[in-house]
Amino acid sequence: MANTRAEAFAPATVANLGVGFDILGLALHEPGDVVRAERREDPGAVIVHIEGDGGRLPYAADKNTACIAAEATLRLLGVRTGAALTIYKRLPLASGLGSSAASAVAAAVAVNALYGASLTCAELLPACLEGEAAVSGYHADNIAPCLFGGITLVTGTTADQIHALPVPANIVLGLFTPDMAVPTAMARAVLPALVGLREMVAQTAAVAWLVDALHRQDIAELAAAMEGDVVVETARAHLIPHLEDARAAAKQAGALGVVISGAGPTLCAVCDDETTARAAGEAMQAIYARVGITGMARHTRISTKGAHVLGVA
Amino acid sequence: MANTRAEAFAPATVANLGVGFDILGLALHEPGDVVRAERREDPGAVIVHIEGDGGRLPYAADKNTACIAAEATLRLLGVRTGAALTIYKRLPLASGLGSSAASAVAAAVAVNALYGASLTCAELLPACLEGEAAVSGYHADNIAPCLFGGITLVTGTTADQIHALPVPANIVLGLFTPDMAVPTAMARAVLPALVGLREMVAQTAAVAWLVDALHRQDIAELAAAMEGDVVVETARAHLIPHLEDARAAAKQAGALGVVISGAGPTLCAVCDDETTARAAGEAMQAIYARVGITGMARHTRISTKGAHVLGVA
Repeated sequence: MANTRAEAFAPATVANLGVGFDILGLALHEPGDVVRAERREDPGAVIVHIEGDGGRLPYAADKNTACIAAEATLRLLGVRTGAALTIYKRLPLASGLGSSAASAVAAAVAVNALYGASLTCAELLPACLEGEAAVSGYHADNIAPCLFGGITLVTGTTADQIHALPVPANIVLGLFTPDMAVPTAMARAVLPALVGLREMVAQTAAVAWLVDALHRQDIAELAAAMEGDVVVETARAHLIPHLEDARAAAKQAGALGVVISGAGPTLCAVCDDETTARAAGEAMQAIYARVGITGMARHTRISTKGAHVLGVA
Repeated sequence: MANTRAEAFAPATVANLGVGFDILGLALHEPGDVVRAERREDPGAVIVHIEGDGGRLPYAADKNTACIAAEATLRLLGVRTGAALTIYKRLPLASGLGSSAASAVAAAVAVNALYGASLTCAELLPACLEGEAAVSGYHADNIAPCLFGGITLVTGTTADQIHALPVPANIVLGLFTPDMAVPTAMARAVLPALVGLREMVAQTAAVAWLVDALHRQDIAELAAAMEGDVVVETARAHLIPHLEDARAAAKQAGALGVVISGAGPTLCAVCDDETTARAAGEAMQAIYARVGITGMARHTRISTKGAHVLGVA
C-alpha cells in the first residue's frame, strides 16, 4: 500500500474480427498505451502530462477516458488519496485499434497497482467501461480483450458475460493503418438500423463457423469465416477507400483473410506465419502508397496476457 | 450390385437449437423413419406403400419427398433400373422434428444401399435436399444432421458448407410434442423480414456462445445460449400456446433450457441426465394435459451416427 508510482501497459485491440460486430475482439502483442500513476494526497485523479497524442486528447478529468477510469478505480479501491497520471499515447487515435480502451485500461491497471493491486481484472472491468463510455459508448468489445488478453466474446458488459475463446497457435496478424481518421461515431452512423432476416442468418452462420474454427485452430477457416460479414463491412466499405485492392494485395502476399479492425481504417490481415504477415502489411501499404496515402504497416501476434503492470516503486 | 431390397433408418432432428435459426441442428437417437427400397426393372422410383401417416402423405412421385430423393439418388447412381419404396412413417408430420427430411434421407440411403452403396453421404446430400425442397425449401438445417448425425452447422447447402460440431457427453433431451400441427409455411410466414441491428448483435453473440459451450462440453451454458434467441421464438411464441408454462415446468423438473424444435410445436428440453430428461418431458406433458391438449413425451440422446442402413438382401 506504500507505493509512490506504478506503470501499466494496455494493448491495442482488434474488435469485430469481421463478422463479429460488437461481440468479438482480440488483444495485440503490440503496440499499446502506457500510463504512469503517481500517488497524490488529494483525492481523485488528474492528468499531469500526455505524450504522443499530438495535443489532441483532453486534460479535463471528466472528459479524458484514462482519467475517468482512474477515478472509478480509486472509488472501487476505497482510498482517500488520489492519482496523478502521465499518459504515453502510443496508439494512433480513431484508427480502429481500440485507442480509448487502451488508455482507460492502462490507467485502471496502473492505479490498482499503485494501491497494492487488490482488485482483480474482473473487478476493474466496470471502471474501464466507464472510461470507454466517455468516448465510444458503454460496451466491452475492445475493453474485454485489452483487459483480459486473448480473444474474447462479449455477450454483455459484466465479467460473467465475457468469454475467453481459444487462441490458435501460429496466428500472426499483418496490419496497415492508413493516415486517415475514421471517427467511431461516423462509422456507427452509417450502419443500418434494420437488417434482413436472410442477412441475420448468414451473419450467425459465419460467427458460429468462426468460433468453431478457433476451437479447431484452423486459421484458414477462421479467416474465411471472419470475411463472412454481410452487414457491417458492406455499410462501412465506402469509408475506407481501396479496401478491396488492399485485401487482394494482402491475399496475393499470402494472407488468408482481411477485415476492417474495429471501426477502421486499420486493416487486419490474418496469416499463419510472421513472414507472410509482414508481407501482407507491406502489400497493403504499397496499395495506399500508389494513391498517395501514407500509413504504418505492422505485424504482430495475439497477446494472451492483455494489460499488465510494467513496474511499481 | 445384385441386391433386391434394402432398408434404411433416418432419425428425427431438432433444427434451430433456439438461437441458431436455419443454421444449427442435431440428430436424435430416436424416433426415425424407415424406408424399404426394392429393385424394380422399370427406371425411376415409385411408392408402393406408406404406413403410419394416417393417409396424409402423397403417393405421387413428384410430390412425395422420399420419392423425389429416391429418384435423384437413382440419377446420381446412373442406373437404368428403379426402386419401389415402402415408407414406415414413424415421425409425426408438421411437428418440428424434421419429418420430411427423415423420409427423404431414409429413401436416399436405402436406394443407395440397394445399388451397392457406392455413394458417400456427401454425395447423397443433393438428392436429399431435392426431396426436402418439395416440402419445405432447399435448405439443410434438418437434412444435414439427419444424414451425417451429431450436431451440425450449415453455412450453405453443399457438403463443404456442413460442419460437424462436437457433441457433449451426458446431454439428454426431453421432448414433448403436443397434438397440434404447426405447418412450416405458417411458422415461416410469421417471421419478420427485417431485424434490428441490436437484435442481430444479440443473436450473433448467443450463437457464438453456444458453439463455444459445445466445444467446452458445458451443457448449462449451452442451454442458456440456446435460449438467447430474441428474433425467431419471439415471433413464433404465439403459435405455441403455453410455451412459457411448459418451459417453467421443465426447468422446475431440472431441465437447463427449453427451446422450440424446428418450427414447432415440439418442445425440446436440454438436460444432463436421463432421469431429468424424462421428468422434463413429462412435466411439459402435464402442463398441456391441464388444458386438455394431449401429446407424446419422449427422452432421447443425440445420435452421432445419423441415417444408416438397417439391412440389405
